[in-house]
Amino acid sequence: MVEIRKPIPVAHAVELVMKHAYPLGNEEIPLENAYGRILAEPLLAKHDVPPFDRSPYDGYAIRSEDTDGASGDSRVPFRVIGEIGAGHVADRPINKGEAFRIMTGALIPENANAVVMFEQTVETKDAFTIRKPFSKGENISFKGEDAKDGELLIDAGALIHPGTIALLATFGYAHVNVAKQPVVGILSTGTELLNVDEELVPGKIRNSNGPMIMAQLDRMGIDYKSYGMHADDLDSCAQMVAQAIEETDVLITTGGVSVGDYDHLPLIYERLGAKVLFNKVAMRPGSVTTVAVLDKKLLFGLSGNPSACFTGFELFTRPAILTMMGADKPYMPRMTAELSEDFQKPNPFTRFVRAIWESTPDGVVARPAGFNKSSAVSSIARGNCIIVLPSGTRGFTVGMKVDILLLGAEQGVADWVL
Amino acid sequence: MVEIRKPIPVAHAVELVMKHAYPLGNEEIPLENAYGRILAEPLLAKHDVPPFDRSPYDGYAIRSEDTDGASGDSRVPFRVIGEIGAGHVADRPINKGEAFRIMTGALIPENANAVVMFEQTVETKDAFTIRKPFSKGENISFKGEDAKDGELLIDAGALIHPGTIALLATFGYAHVNVAKQPVVGILSTGTELLNVDEELVPGKIRNSNGPMIMAQLDRMGIDYKSYGMHADDLDSCAQMVAQAIEETDVLITTGGVSVGDYDHLPLIYERLGAKVLFNKVAMRPGSVTTVAVLDKKLLFGLSGNPSACFTGFELFTRPAILTMMGADKPYMPRMTAELSEDFQKPNPFTRFVRAIWESTPDGVVARPAGFNKSSAVSSIARGNCIIVLPSGTRGFTVGMKVDILLLGAEQGVADWVL
Repeated sequence: MVEIRKPIPVAHAVELVMKHAYPLGNEEIPLENAYGRILAEPLLAKHDVPPFDRSPYDGYAIRSEDTDGASGDSRVPFRVIGEIGAGHVADRPINKGEAFRIMTGALIPENANAVVMFEQTVETKDAFTIRKPFSKGENISFKGEDAKDGELLIDAGALIHPGTIALLATFGYAHVNVAKQPVVGILSTGTELLNVDEELVPGKIRNSNGPMIMAQLDRMGIDYKSYGMHADDLDSCAQMVAQAIEETDVLITTGGVSVGDYDHLPLIYERLGAKVLFNKVAMRPGSVTTVAVLDKKLLFGLSGNPSACFTGFELFTRPAILTMMGADKPYMPRMTAELSEDFQKPNPFTRFVRAIWESTPDGVVARPAGFNKSSAVSSIARGNCIIVLPSGTRGFTVGMKVDILLLGAEQGVADWVL
Repeated sequence: MVEIRKPIPVAHAVELVMKHAYPLGNEEIPLENAYGRILAEPLLAKHDVPPFDRSPYDGYAIRSEDTDGASGDSRVPFRVIGEIGAGHVADRPINKGEAFRIMTGALIPENANAVVMFEQTVETKDAFTIRKPFSKGENISFKGEDAKDGELLIDAGALIHPGTIALLATFGYAHVNVAKQPVVGILSTGTELLNVDEELVPGKIRNSNGPMIMAQLDRMGIDYKSYGMHADDLDSCAQMVAQAIEETDVLITTGGVSVGDYDHLPLIYERLGAKVLFNKVAMRPGSVTTVAVLDKKLLFGLSGNPSACFTGFELFTRPAILTMMGADKPYMPRMTAELSEDFQKPNPFTRFVRAIWESTPDGVVARPAGFNKSSAVSSIARGNCIIVLPSGTRGFTVGMKVDILLLGAEQGVADWVL
């Protein structure tokens, strides 16, 4: 008799997975390796930025009070007493009628309180004139105007992107305290599987899920160990799963989670004493997606169908890994788009349709990426988003507004609301 | 006398750069290294997908004609003559009243033309009954329904993402023909610069642009050589630039492109015989961005101001590198968002404002990420997009629709239209 499984809503499945995504602790790494990691502590300004009043232009540092009354008819002259390149400091203060030639980024000399741009002067040797008054502070980048000493700039849990790196460098973080990343194991199951370099024979197909998941992890910058492919043999598969769990923080298997005679993962989870969080999700593709927990490690039993496998990874595995890495925004960003194709048949399960979003003069339009079955592989190679069609008793027609989830986006959102 | 430079529009500057982004040829790489690379040849289906008629479910393969007249009152019985697991093939055809037990993904046996799911049967030992007729082809995944032998699936020039990897694996591409990637040199100039691990002293700041650009290249998966930091000394700088050009395909320098006394890059380009494409762009930040070409190599003279440097890289360097890599969609994706803050002062230059986009019930809203000057570093550490405010004689107010460019997105668009 076939086992009857009770499907749970996607949001509930996400919640269950996230409850068991345990952080792995922190580590210090060199700044140059920090791109894509998650800040383990808040980034506080260690000093004012800029650290001193400085010139935002190439020009002359002057006292604004010396410019009073300047006009086209009555140009005010200044005497240049020296030059300050960026990285240098003036050797003395300026006095009435004096100016330092000053370069962008250089420290404003004592007594100066305005900068005249070269373009605003008529220059002669060691002197220049101006034709307008300058106010106090004009053309000066003030100490602390960008960030104040001690200010909280970025919260812990934020992804470190190139801009974050710039800020970390500014404050001298040669090493950064980041959350540890999991090592993920990948094991493809199925007697029908051939290696990528093998010739097709009747009844067999090449393993596309293994390489795909490696690329999904590459995209996230996550290390993995591949445990190759295994035929549907219970004992050897169970042994390999047990070994993989020993050696990794998260295990992803593909295939073996349906109700067929050789779908051994449920039995393997039972043998190992893993707690199954769910084995049926009200979604298409990927309804057989099964997630279990053993010794605080998540075991993702993804479908052997490529579309289902891809979707299961992006919906469940990716946010779980990001949460283990300490991310506060682990979910794919979403937006609203206009549907460009009918999906008239209602479905009791939430559908996730691989699609291409584009900005048009009428707004964002989402177009399905092609053949749309859980076994599809061609459509997952196209497109940049997933259309979400909620479960229910009605279909969807061209022009309706639907939610889309963006794939391959660096930054995420904090909540799963679909 | 200060040199007067003529600003060119951003779109023109982009066009000039892209004209000089020369592809570097192709290479074969292992599939497992192909994520993020660009397909150098079209991806054609090497065989049908699926390669044979197969079962999409766990159930029984039958002849549909044997189900005629089945109903709840008149259940039709079948005799199970064997089992076909995925990866196996039936040892004989089926005849009238016979069925093979069949697993998801397995090849449909000869004479069978429909699959009955387990849930649709009442099973006894070696037999089952059904209560409804099945049509020919019901519950069968047909050979070639996903892709046909010889079909063009993905064009050359496409980014290889995880879905592409799945498709390449399906067709046995153990090696992939991809466009070569450039090696990029990075050289930070400025006497004011300290290394990340150095203590601040008056007039000096730490080098944030170098590490930031490394991370911008990391994000693209591009290799680089760092040439460190150089004080504003013409001769030594010129020598280092010449060496870097020898050793790399693209050179990025930061600083030294304005009109100050120690802005040596223009003179270095002249000495080396490089052709300057432009040295002033009608944009803020980054108006001093200078791009030159020498021996078919692009030399990006980015501003030393962090915000300007960041923006110059994303607008010019990134699409140029992607084009050298063969990408047909090198530009940041864009969409329309509602502005959440006033920018009332008109500007003769196009402004690029670092911002955060969010999906709200009222649509996409873009909120500036903070302190907005070309020298800013705090704001580039926040946010996920750039708001584009066109040049002109009027300002922008809350609620207006503006274009935004998405940062850190895997996929791009083919045209620069702003």
